[in-house]
Amino acid sequence: MKLATLKNNTRDGLLIVVSRDLKRYAPAKNIAPTLQAALDEWDAISPKLEALSKAVNDGSADTFAFHQDECESPLPRAYTWMDGSAYLNHVELVRKARGAEVPESFYDDPLMYQGGSDTFIGPHDPIEAIDTSHGIDMEAEITVITDDVPMGVTPADAAAHIKLIMLVNDVSLRGLIPNELRKGFGFVHGKASSAFSPVAVTPDELGEAWTDNTIDLPLLVDYNGKPFGKANAKTDMTFNMARLVSHAAATRHLCAGSIIGSGTVSNKFEGGEGKKIEDGGVGYSCIAEVRMIEKIQTGEFITPFMQFGDTVCIEMNDADGNSIFGTIKNRVEKYTP
Amino acid sequence: MKLATLKNNTRDGLLIVVSRDLKRYAPAKNIAPTLQAALDEWDAISPKLEALSKAVNDGSADTFAFHQDECESPLPRAYTWMDGSAYLNHVELVRKARGAEVPESFYDDPLMYQGGSDTFIGPHDPIEAIDTSHGIDMEAEITVITDDVPMGVTPADAAAHIKLIMLVNDVSLRGLIPNELRKGFGFVHGKASSAFSPVAVTPDELGEAWTDNTIDLPLLVDYNGKPFGKANAKTDMTFNMARLVSHAAATRHLCAGSIIGSGTVSNKFEGGEGKKIEDGGVGYSCIAEVRMIEKIQTGEFITPFMQFGDTVCIEMNDADGNSIFGTIKNRVEKYTP
Repeated sequence: MKLATLKNNTRDGLLIVVSRDLKRYAPAKNIAPTLQAALDEWDAISPKLEALSKAVNDGSADTFAFHQDECESPLPRAYTWMDGSAYLNHVELVRKARGAEVPESFYDDPLMYQGGSDTFIGPHDPIEAIDTSHGIDMEAEITVITDDVPMGVTPADAAAHIKLIMLVNDVSLRGLIPNELRKGFGFVHGKASSAFSPVAVTPDELGEAWTDNTIDLPLLVDYNGKPFGKANAKTDMTFNMARLVSHAAATRHLCAGSIIGSGTVSNKFEGGEGKKIEDGGVGYSCIAEVRMIEKIQTGEFITPFMQFGDTVCIEMNDADGNSIFGTIKNRVEKYTP
Repeated sequence: MKLATLKNNTRDGLLIVVSRDLKRYAPAKNIAPTLQAALDEWDAISPKLEALSKAVNDGSADTFAFHQDECESPLPRAYTWMDGSAYLNHVELVRKARGAEVPESFYDDPLMYQGGSDTFIGPHDPIEAIDTSHGIDMEAEITVITDDVPMGVTPADAAAHIKLIMLVNDVSLRGLIPNELRKGFGFVHGKASSAFSPVAVTPDELGEAWTDNTIDLPLLVDYNGKPFGKANAKTDMTFNMARLVSHAAATRHLCAGSIIGSGTVSNKFEGGEGKKIEDGGVGYSCIAEVRMIEKIQTGEFITPFMQFGDTVCIEMNDADGNSIFGTIKNRVEKYTP
């Protein structure tokens, strides 16, 4: 099934069940008022949502036209958002750009940070930024939402705790990150509020594309209307989503509704460091990687980070070309405190 | 007023208003079911809670006996928990123990990490730990809860967003921290679930002790029944709570119910690195600092980190010796995944 959250002037929005083709929806308020409320009692509530989903898809339920721009992120605020770095090509390129090495341990021990989860923006909301000197960048990723996960869960057991899947634009402020990473305490200023895909889906919606706890499909990133990235989310993934959930829960329990991210999807492409789409490659899921490739090829960073007015779109299509999660579409706007 | 959350077999517990002397309470369920719900509409709801508080304290409300061991943390789960390091003596000692330097910038730019906020333990709940080799340590701190804080708020304007004050035991796993800090992405394994004081209080409850956006009172730490620390939370504080809120909100908005922590309270004591209570000092608010002092004085770490069965108590008394927040009391217990 596919779930979304409509804006309704409350902090947590209104839970709805969306048709597979993203055209119609039915409110789920008689089942659970919000997605967090559904996740809090997932075993009892999800069968009722599945029944409504069936009725939405077979036309037997009363439905309304679904508009992605009326959505909050599926969880407008969450109790945990932890983001891994499962694609080592991204880590290698971004570190190279900062003049930093990739420690050997990174290939066995996932990098992960605890992100701000209290003020996600909607999938079509603007990215508010104070200053373009902060180095505004998109990061296109896949993410999962869990139910309650016990401390010390193994990767094998973690798989069963993955209940929903989304995409995310993990907005990064590259200009502020080097100073924060030197401090060692992770990101406070270097990550802005993230935007998630309009729709969260259960793994079965992905069919055979959900394999080995990841998605074997290209993640499509458009930047200012041009194709920018189409890296496959399974290719070159060092740690799958179950492994990342296990890492997140190593020393404490995770609450239902925890969101775990993959990190920026990045493909090496024929063993190298990737190629731009216009050069015949699969492109990139963030600007920092393109800049590093430019630096390697020409000695200069060419593509600037996002400026006010720039827009990024992120989505993923099934084998038939149909959008699975809807589109994340964020435009950068100036915010004056 | 003083607020607390009773365990009631729900995830977010039952909001109650507690008498100033911590002896009686009245349920607030007709005003707001949970503390988060109250914070979500604080301007509208807090006057009603204040009215109930007045009735609880003057005896005109129906009340029940208040038992601290029936409490959840005031917010059993929160959308944000960000913890600073405002007492540089702590940072200096802990870094010395790791053989690391304190960069000059730390005296101008607060250290802060985004902590796990989805599974706080109750004030009298056990600290569940898998292995004592993880180096289980308490960290006694003061914290504030904010309403909605706009991005880029100044320290001066941040003060008005501080709505409630609590204590916290920010449980740390010292054995896992050096490896994580080397990775630069902050704490995922190095921090267990935190416990907050039974009661959260509005700043006016502290009277003149709430000054310059901190608390001018000793934070009392007992370890296995013996006095361990009584450092003053105002003394040697480099960044006050309003400054820390401003730091947390520099590049994104914070949602109502955000918890911001001071970091481990630590006093230099007569210009030095502090002294144990039995040596005539004010002691320490975590074991890591004591161990470093031992190392400096004797060449050896003597006090072990917490073992299964060890218990820490944290509280703060007003000038008349009355407990303000109730007592955090956590015993370490073995958890087997």
